[in-house]
Amino acid sequence: MALYVHKYGGTSVGNTERIRTVADKIIKARRRGEDIVVVVSAMSGETNKLVGFAQEVAERPDPREMDVLLSTGEQVTIALLAMALQDRGCPAVSYTGWQVRILSDDAHTKARIENIDTEGMRADLDQGKVVVVAGFQGVTEEGDITTLGRGGSDTTAVALAAALKADECLIFTDVDGVYTTDPRIEPKARRLERITFEEMLEMASLGSKVLQIRSVEFAGKYNVPLRVLSSFEEGGGTLISYEEAGVEKALISGIAFNRDEAKLTVQGVPDRPGIASKILGPIAAANIEVDMIVQNVAEDQTTDFTFTVHRNEYRKALEILEATRQELGAKLVHGDNTIVKVSIVGVGMRSHAGIAAKTFAALAKEGINIRMISTSEIKISVVVDEKYLELAVRTLHDAFGLDRQPEAA
Amino acid sequence: MALYVHKYGGTSVGNTERIRTVADKIIKARRRGEDIVVVVSAMSGETNKLVGFAQEVAERPDPREMDVLLSTGEQVTIALLAMALQDRGCPAVSYTGWQVRILSDDAHTKARIENIDTEGMRADLDQGKVVVVAGFQGVTEEGDITTLGRGGSDTTAVALAAALKADECLIFTDVDGVYTTDPRIEPKARRLERITFEEMLEMASLGSKVLQIRSVEFAGKYNVPLRVLSSFEEGGGTLISYEEAGVEKALISGIAFNRDEAKLTVQGVPDRPGIASKILGPIAAANIEVDMIVQNVAEDQTTDFTFTVHRNEYRKALEILEATRQELGAKLVHGDNTIVKVSIVGVGMRSHAGIAAKTFAALAKEGINIRMISTSEIKISVVVDEKYLELAVRTLHDAFGLDRQPEAA
Repeated sequence: MALYVHKYGGTSVGNTERIRTVADKIIKARRRGEDIVVVVSAMSGETNKLVGFAQEVAERPDPREMDVLLSTGEQVTIALLAMALQDRGCPAVSYTGWQVRILSDDAHTKARIENIDTEGMRADLDQGKVVVVAGFQGVTEEGDITTLGRGGSDTTAVALAAALKADECLIFTDVDGVYTTDPRIEPKARRLERITFEEMLEMASLGSKVLQIRSVEFAGKYNVPLRVLSSFEEGGGTLISYEEAGVEKALISGIAFNRDEAKLTVQGVPDRPGIASKILGPIAAANIEVDMIVQNVAEDQTTDFTFTVHRNEYRKALEILEATRQELGAKLVHGDNTIVKVSIVGVGMRSHAGIAAKTFAALAKEGINIRMISTSEIKISVVVDEKYLELAVRTLHDAFGLDRQPEAA
Repeated sequence: MALYVHKYGGTSVGNTERIRTVADKIIKARRRGEDIVVVVSAMSGETNKLVGFAQEVAERPDPREMDVLLSTGEQVTIALLAMALQDRGCPAVSYTGWQVRILSDDAHTKARIENIDTEGMRADLDQGKVVVVAGFQGVTEEGDITTLGRGGSDTTAVALAAALKADECLIFTDVDGVYTTDPRIEPKARRLERITFEEMLEMASLGSKVLQIRSVEFAGKYNVPLRVLSSFEEGGGTLISYEEAGVEKALISGIAFNRDEAKLTVQGVPDRPGIASKILGPIAAANIEVDMIVQNVAEDQTTDFTFTVHRNEYRKALEILEATRQELGAKLVHGDNTIVKVSIVGVGMRSHAGIAAKTFAALAKEGINIRMISTSEIKISVVVDEKYLELAVRTLHDAFGLDRQPEAA
């Protein structure tokens, strides 16, 4: 019998009416003859309420106790969903993280799953029960409750699917799939039927916040096909899996973008080994994450070094660079916090030349000046002035024909 | 080192400010050099909120899932209290029922504790930690979460005190102790320094709802001294323990009363063996609880049979009796739902004659007609018209000098 892991996030179980809707949805799938394990999050708002309580009683809440506190959110949802299913005549049983035995390390509030005991769930499935599991939580060898950190319910779902060798892991959410780009910017944006794990990772990290990046990595690692779909509307969603031969494959899957970027340039630094670490060392020490890094070839023994950071960190990064400029022997330090990053993502790039050229040509035709370029195996990112963001996204979406269904390769 | 079990109910931990107050209280006790295990209830209102959710998703919520749901209430409180303690520099650790291992039977929503594993708590206490335990919950041999039913947190506290051989079990609540009678009726009512388990059971079942009766029984059985005291005010509260030789002992400890009574009489029933069960059988079958039962000696081969029930059940009980009157061969069935029960309670009664006479005389002097009398080893209950309730309570309180501190025996 086909086995599916369903995951419903906080919005999908946000009140008792929605929990009843989820129960109906699961029963429908059961009638199709599917075995189902369901992972649920806390009802939306609950986790924040609990965090608020913690902040009211303690300046620095103890992480172990924080996990005891936060894990109650999902425990409420599993009980409600299981009783809703049973009340509708569908045998069901709920399990907390420790009851399944989702063994984790002891890194409280950001634990990692180490092992999942599937025996009990298997027995329940064999008896025709729907198994409802609390997402986001585990238990240590010593019996302490842990939580997996933000988005941990996705990780739980993927880990369960991997451990149970499920056919697919369905992530129900408030969007109906992964799009070629943000439909608020490009109304012609199209839902993708399929996307590869690698593409999804590039899309996610670039701002298409549909899935937690850790769960995508996990799914890729254990080869668990992931499907993102709406918990409110019907539809097949988007399947995230490895590239399969013969399957329709677009050259480019989507256009991602990030508005929160700022760039900083150190100009005219002596071109010596170790200069990059001298520049970025103090930035890293100040806990500022660096995104793109570009260094041009040297001219006259000096080089220009440019990198981007989150816009919130711009002032701090600029101050650090200015403080170290003399020591670096740099001519000038300057920056710009009115830039954005636009990226085209697609595994098709690997086997097709000319994608970069086509990208740059399309942007040039619209008079969009490219300020920085960075490329990977399956991604080309450009930095442009923020005023061009929407135009750049639409131009590239159009240039690569993303509004049209790709033909089978 | 002296070991105390503290128990704080829902009102005492009703919001984060009160949880901070409880933390301060515990730290003060620690500074006196006491080892402390704390049992807490859910924040007031939380359990009702969860029950409401359950009713919204299922007509008949499954009991196993109900326990998974309800046990989250106490789990929230233990985490908040433990982090509040730690934040104030007091080492603390929280445990759910399954983490302590409070083993119970599998009677979901009304489970009974079978065993408590004290090893972990002992180790924590030895390390100078305050141990914070979730009340009201346990776990079955199979790893299912159970709850102990209403008032279960008191039971948890007493059971922990028994298992750990604690010096005392302190029940913090919103009253500052057990009184000689209700101060709203007799302003001269006095807080009792001490009361015996037996007296407390009689007082509790008669309407002084300070402690859950089950926890008092439990405390008596395992000889755990119980102390009821206010979580909001300072004071020694009332100690509930076994009678000790040489300790100040009053003849009478208090006057309890119950407004919710109604009495029913079957008049002129043939005085045959088995008649009581013929009368009460249908009443019990209808799930009506009977309180006092009085049967007078027979005259002319017939007898009168009177009993009391909760006032809410009066109509139903009367209908049942009327339906069975002919079959019983009774002359008449009648009742009264404007009566109340007033009881004097005291272990001193055992060794002192004349208490009953003094009671009846005091009431007669005020012109209060006694409608029914029932006595036990340590209690005399009378039924009077409800209009006399306050007068009867004050008269007896005065007659036995309950406003005065008793002298040492």
